[in-house]
Amino acid sequence: MTAAADRFDLVTFTSDFGIDDSYVAICKGVLRRFAPHADVVDVTHTVPAQDIRHAALVLARTVPWFTGAVHLAIVDPGVGTDRRAVAVRAGDSVLVGPDNGLLIAAADALGAPREAVALTNTDRFLMPVSATFHGRDVFAPSAGQLASGCALTDLGEPIDPATLVRLPTPRIATANGCLTAEIVDVDTYGNVQLATRLHHLEQVGLAGASEVKVTTNGAVTRALRTKSYGEVPPGTLVLYVDSAGALELAVNEGSAAHALGATVGDDVEIRGD
Amino acid sequence: MTAAADRFDLVTFTSDFGIDDSYVAICKGVLRRFAPHADVVDVTHTVPAQDIRHAALVLARTVPWFTGAVHLAIVDPGVGTDRRAVAVRAGDSVLVGPDNGLLIAAADALGAPREAVALTNTDRFLMPVSATFHGRDVFAPSAGQLASGCALTDLGEPIDPATLVRLPTPRIATANGCLTAEIVDVDTYGNVQLATRLHHLEQVGLAGASEVKVTTNGAVTRALRTKSYGEVPPGTLVLYVDSAGALELAVNEGSAAHALGATVGDDVEIRGD
Amino acid sequence: MTAAADRFDLVTFTSDFGIDDSYVAICKGVLRRFAPHADVVDVTHTVPAQDIRHAALVLARTVPWFTGAVHLAIVDPGVGTDRRAVAVRAGDSVLVGPDNGLLIAAADALGAPREAVALTNTDRFLMPVSATFHGRDVFAPSAGQLASGCALTDLGEPIDPATLVRLPTPRIATANGCLTAEIVDVDTYGNVQLATRLHHLEQVGLAGASEVKVTTNGAVTRALRTKSYGEVPPGTLVLYVDSAGALELAVNEGSAAHALGATVGDDVEIRGD
Repeated sequence: MTAAADRFDLVTFTSDFGIDDSYVAICKGVLRRFAPHADVVDVTHTVPAQDIRHAALVLARTVPWFTGAVHLAIVDPGVGTDRRAVAVRAGDSVLVGPDNGLLIAAADALGAPREAVALTNTDRFLMPVSATFHGRDVFAPSAGQLASGCALTDLGEPIDPATLVRLPTPRIATANGCLTAEIVDVDTYGNVQLATRLHHLEQVGLAGASEVKVTTNGAVTRALRTKSYGEVPPGTLVLYVDSAGALELAVNEGSAAHALGATVGDDVEIRGD
Repeated sequence: MTAAADRFDLVTFTSDFGIDDSYVAICKGVLRRFAPHADVVDVTHTVPAQDIRHAALVLARTVPWFTGAVHLAIVDPGVGTDRRAVAVRAGDSVLVGPDNGLLIAAADALGAPREAVALTNTDRFLMPVSATFHGRDVFAPSAGQLASGCALTDLGEPIDPATLVRLPTPRIATANGCLTAEIVDVDTYGNVQLATRLHHLEQVGLAGASEVKVTTNGAVTRALRTKSYGEVPPGTLVLYVDSAGALELAVNEGSAAHALGATVGDDVEIRGD
Repeated sequence: MTAAADRFDLVTFTSDFGIDDSYVAICKGVLRRFAPHADVVDVTHTVPAQDIRHAALVLARTVPWFTGAVHLAIVDPGVGTDRRAVAVRAGDSVLVGPDNGLLIAAADALGAPREAVALTNTDRFLMPVSATFHGRDVFAPSAGQLASGCALTDLGEPIDPATLVRLPTPRIATANGCLTAEIVDVDTYGNVQLATRLHHLEQVGLAGASEVKVTTNGAVTRALRTKSYGEVPPGTLVLYVDSAGALELAVNEGSAAHALGATVGDDVEIRGD
């Protein structure tokens, strides 16, 4: 056993386990067994079943606001196959979950992955490991032991962080005064988040525009360029930089996703008048 | 800086952020940064988007059961406009949120607002303040600092509590043996809560009635006057004093809202036989 | 007053209160009043209204993963009637809730009920007790006082654990090479949980089968016998032993409940080829 690492007082928990069943509470019972001192903050458990992409985005948006935490994340359609289980150190925190693209955007948001291990040390698991609930048997025990000061290398073999699975990069293109960007998320309010930032608008000369044309699935709409949705009349479509620095479309007191008839994975084209 | 106030060990948290996104967890990360000692209890985050009225009612029903807490509440359709952000002292607790009617019923439920400030002291915020997420940048930092013993007046300018925005008073009328009352909430079970208390029934001579006629949207139904819904056969409509002291209509093992075809904002007329 | 019992640092909380209203937070305020030292872990609050059976199953699956806890569970269609309120000691934990079948499977999962009392000692309640919210007035105060070291017998009269209400036993039959089992739960993923374990398959000679025929509501489907759903192509129906040791049907990246057109309470027949 290597020298003990620092303890963590906090574990955040993200999953697609839903809020109706016993899965989340069981993992918390296991966490408590290994790290009775640690608080647990739920990020979300209502990730659509096996939607790694949405979970990765929510997690990446969340982790920068915590200091010194273990981030446990479980959206794991490959449970029971040979996908790797991993722990990844990034910034002053550690991420624990399946190696399927779920963790890497969050690691990047914390700086970059600095160290990674495959969770292969079975004497750190709850044995026998079930075929379908590695959250309980592998990930929660690992997260709990990390919170209690266990070193990453106590949990398994070091791996090259460059080998961690990455999700496809969202589509972004700038050409002929048109910014084309993929919708990467739609939030509770129907706000449509794009895989772009302000500098992409600058590249197509629209950073200073007061109004733009928005094309989705062949339909063209106008959107005001604003700082927020609160400053326009109800029903107005606006384009602004959201609280995470990404471009977002919203309708004041309405749903931009509904107004645009668009959803995650669709492209949005933004042009000047 | 003024003298430090008392610390609070507890922050309750109410919002319309939903449970699917990163918003709630981000605010908890910020709270933890400013008040690592404080526990956080979620009231609800599934307030229908921008439904200030429902959130105000849930919050007002909740706060009397906590002693010495900071109550953080964010339902904020006016974010990014000039609506005030406020902190309000009431009873032994403090309420933090937008000044749009969300907090005042809760302050009344704790006695009355005793002191209020507009959150104007920008060096207490997370800067730069985003245009759309004051929960993260203004309200959570303020709530966290209050929990850690910061005085209200450290956060901004004192304001007259009488100037705090109030929601319209629910309709209640008693005349000719008829009590007319607005539906102010429908809960998880379909129970219909009225803006009335037992003394209103007394005013129309129905406090002792064993059965009443209930009219909603032109349809007339009979309801038994009971102490609870458990004592009648399934499917029976009953009128009783609920656990918060308000009159409520319920159907045993059913939904009164569905049975009455009525929803929040509708009027209910209650008459004798 | 009898000698103080041990304190508990943890209260788990299961209910059908939903997550939209004030009920859960109010109970937590009351718990905090009586046991400020205790952490609270939510199991679920989205039990379908008054679905004792589902709640009992979720609770029974959860409690073995916690050590030394008070388990507060409230699904209480009989509130306001003469159903008993009880506290039950099992293993190193205590269960608190209505005596309607909600607690007994969990007590069995912890070993067996060792001691039980009816919550009759009204000076331990919040008085006056409302007719409709015993969660706030009876169960949360009892759970909080137990967590703070109060003895069971301080809360009311001892009762014989054998008199605790039990739910009907799920149907299981093995005959002529056919295992018939009732569906006892459908989880977030649409996985169909049966009231059977591996030894029932052994009894009908199917423990070693690589494929079985599954009949529900007259329709016949084939299912692969696997260790998990991750090892088969998407859309494939599989039968395996789930993480709680029960037989479960699942569809990889799909819903077995939907594929089978079956729901809780239906029978599933499993035969060889």
